[in-house]
Amino acid sequence: MLEDKNQNKTSLAELGEFGLINHITKYFKVSKPSTIKGVGDDAAVLDASEKQTLVTTDLLIEGVHFDLSYMPLKHLGYKSVMVNLSDVYAMNAEAEQITVSIAVSNRFPLEAIEELYAGIQLACDTYKVDLIGGDTTSSTKGILISVTAIGKAKAENVVYRNGAKPTDLVVVTGDLGAAYLGLQVLEREKEVFKVNPQNQPDLDAYTYLIERQLKPEARKDIPALLKDLDVKPTSMIDISDGLSSELFHICTQSKVGCKIYEDKLPLDPQVITTCEEFELDSTMIALSGGEDYELLFTISIDDFDKVKGNPNLTVIGHITEESQGLQLITRANQEIELQAQGWNSLKNIIV
Amino acid sequence: MLEDKNQNKTSLAELGEFGLINHITKYFKVSKPSTIKGVGDDAAVLDASEKQTLVTTDLLIEGVHFDLSYMPLKHLGYKSVMVNLSDVYAMNAEAEQITVSIAVSNRFPLEAIEELYAGIQLACDTYKVDLIGGDTTSSTKGILISVTAIGKAKAENVVYRNGAKPTDLVVVTGDLGAAYLGLQVLEREKEVFKVNPQNQPDLDAYTYLIERQLKPEARKDIPALLKDLDVKPTSMIDISDGLSSELFHICTQSKVGCKIYEDKLPLDPQVITTCEEFELDSTMIALSGGEDYELLFTISIDDFDKVKGNPNLTVIGHITEESQGLQLITRANQEIELQAQGWNSLKNIIV
Repeated sequence: MLEDKNQNKTSLAELGEFGLINHITKYFKVSKPSTIKGVGDDAAVLDASEKQTLVTTDLLIEGVHFDLSYMPLKHLGYKSVMVNLSDVYAMNAEAEQITVSIAVSNRFPLEAIEELYAGIQLACDTYKVDLIGGDTTSSTKGILISVTAIGKAKAENVVYRNGAKPTDLVVVTGDLGAAYLGLQVLEREKEVFKVNPQNQPDLDAYTYLIERQLKPEARKDIPALLKDLDVKPTSMIDISDGLSSELFHICTQSKVGCKIYEDKLPLDPQVITTCEEFELDSTMIALSGGEDYELLFTISIDDFDKVKGNPNLTVIGHITEESQGLQLITRANQEIELQAQGWNSLKNIIV
Repeated sequence: MLEDKNQNKTSLAELGEFGLINHITKYFKVSKPSTIKGVGDDAAVLDASEKQTLVTTDLLIEGVHFDLSYMPLKHLGYKSVMVNLSDVYAMNAEAEQITVSIAVSNRFPLEAIEELYAGIQLACDTYKVDLIGGDTTSSTKGILISVTAIGKAKAENVVYRNGAKPTDLVVVTGDLGAAYLGLQVLEREKEVFKVNPQNQPDLDAYTYLIERQLKPEARKDIPALLKDLDVKPTSMIDISDGLSSELFHICTQSKVGCKIYEDKLPLDPQVITTCEEFELDSTMIALSGGEDYELLFTISIDDFDKVKGNPNLTVIGHITEESQGLQLITRANQEIELQAQGWNSLKNIIV
């Protein structure tokens, strides 16, 4: 579908790198007061005033992180921004700017790149961040996207991974496991399509799951909500590789353990029914699924009343001494040790 | 040579992403006062105090930007940092931090990645910049490196591309064309090697050219020199795609033209002799070669006495009205129009 067979399409080689940059960037306007100079010089120029600057970066590679047979390019552009903004929000900061570098093989026509950037632009507009730079080049195979996000926060508001203390409560936003199940549904449909391309999939039962996989939203609202609630987390991280893996990061860096309660894990009804259909354990999916882009944080037990009953937040356990390790308390009240079996791109390749 | 056939080598899959990150980053220490938090959280945290922050990013892709058959991985790591620092210096700023993301196929063992990061570390140590973050992932083919560099400068010292004015002088640092010729020499040796792997190349006559290609140095000294000379350029850019291409950027953004004098172009003696040997026009090589990572800038004619005779700086022409276009004045005193034929990765693929 994306092969450059249509002679009416514009070839990237013809346009050249600067032509492509001009073509893409003319639709992006900068709006942040902190963006002094965006695209168009050797470097972008930013002014953080008296705040601290946050920087985070992620690479997304075709065949490793995404499969274009079910990931529309516009969604891919949107998601590649979300993945990075999520890291900024996980520092309790505001995202302000992004740089986007892409490499594409010559099988992609200009129109494909436009789709990708339409998704990036939608993300920039929705999340109010400026695109301030990047690099465009060719690849010898497939497409890859490298995004760097820049944010700012007052020094005293920045939340690291290393501040969790015993008795702190462990809190997650939203619900878990849906993005991973969305991927399973899409993979299944791809196999069905290979056998019978005429088949019209009925995906109504999985709309939430598929949306979580193809169009995740970063939790920009959470730093604002925490401010409103007057809660400063003691540690925070975003859930990109799965809850277990992120708990390991927080516990390792904070030198603590934790107890997580199986019956507290927030699951969407579609996650529960689809797990039954796929014969998967929903707790395992919630713990190891990944790509939820929810936030995981710890708060002082004194702040419990402030978060109690908030529909965005679920208390799933508490922090313990390091010697107690990371424990899951099952519905049957058994303690089992958590495994950090997050997604590992160096082991798991889609192709 | 880099295939993972040696069973004693450490496979990346075995180590996993976090293992790899820990392994690599334990040798990097942060040293900048502006680096509040480096690797190890969702985002790095920086404090620019009252200065402005500069951000620039570049992608380097195997088979497009480099060929591992003659580019040692350590040099590749070093060069990938230089390419980015050069953009920061081209803003008349100090480079402070970098993020490095890499994607590698499983043909690379850990030892190859260590070589790459040894080069990155050498660059960080030599140029006094902190590695503060990044992403490591697998690729389905080859190796790619995405570097983002962050710098700082007082607002009043930042030099953009758009400030050149008619009568300003056009200045370049160092000499031009050597890196491109170094690539030609290496390409020739690769072809010889394919025919006769026993052949021992004698590269003594090309040492400078090859060093410029494999181990370029960014001009960190130039912002400091300009400060000492009390010269603030009216515009500046680094020479990555070739002098002509960079002159086009400055003239387009500043809405001016220029006159460049062929007999003023600074050439190393090895460039002249090797151009004769390869039957190449040295002026063409100086104008279009690329990868020199020298700086091109314009200064007020009133500052001429301050730069005159400085061994680092060569005045190669002057800025004119936009209507006069971009002209090369040949040794025979002919005016010919400059062509912006810089390197274009979307057209030129090594493989």
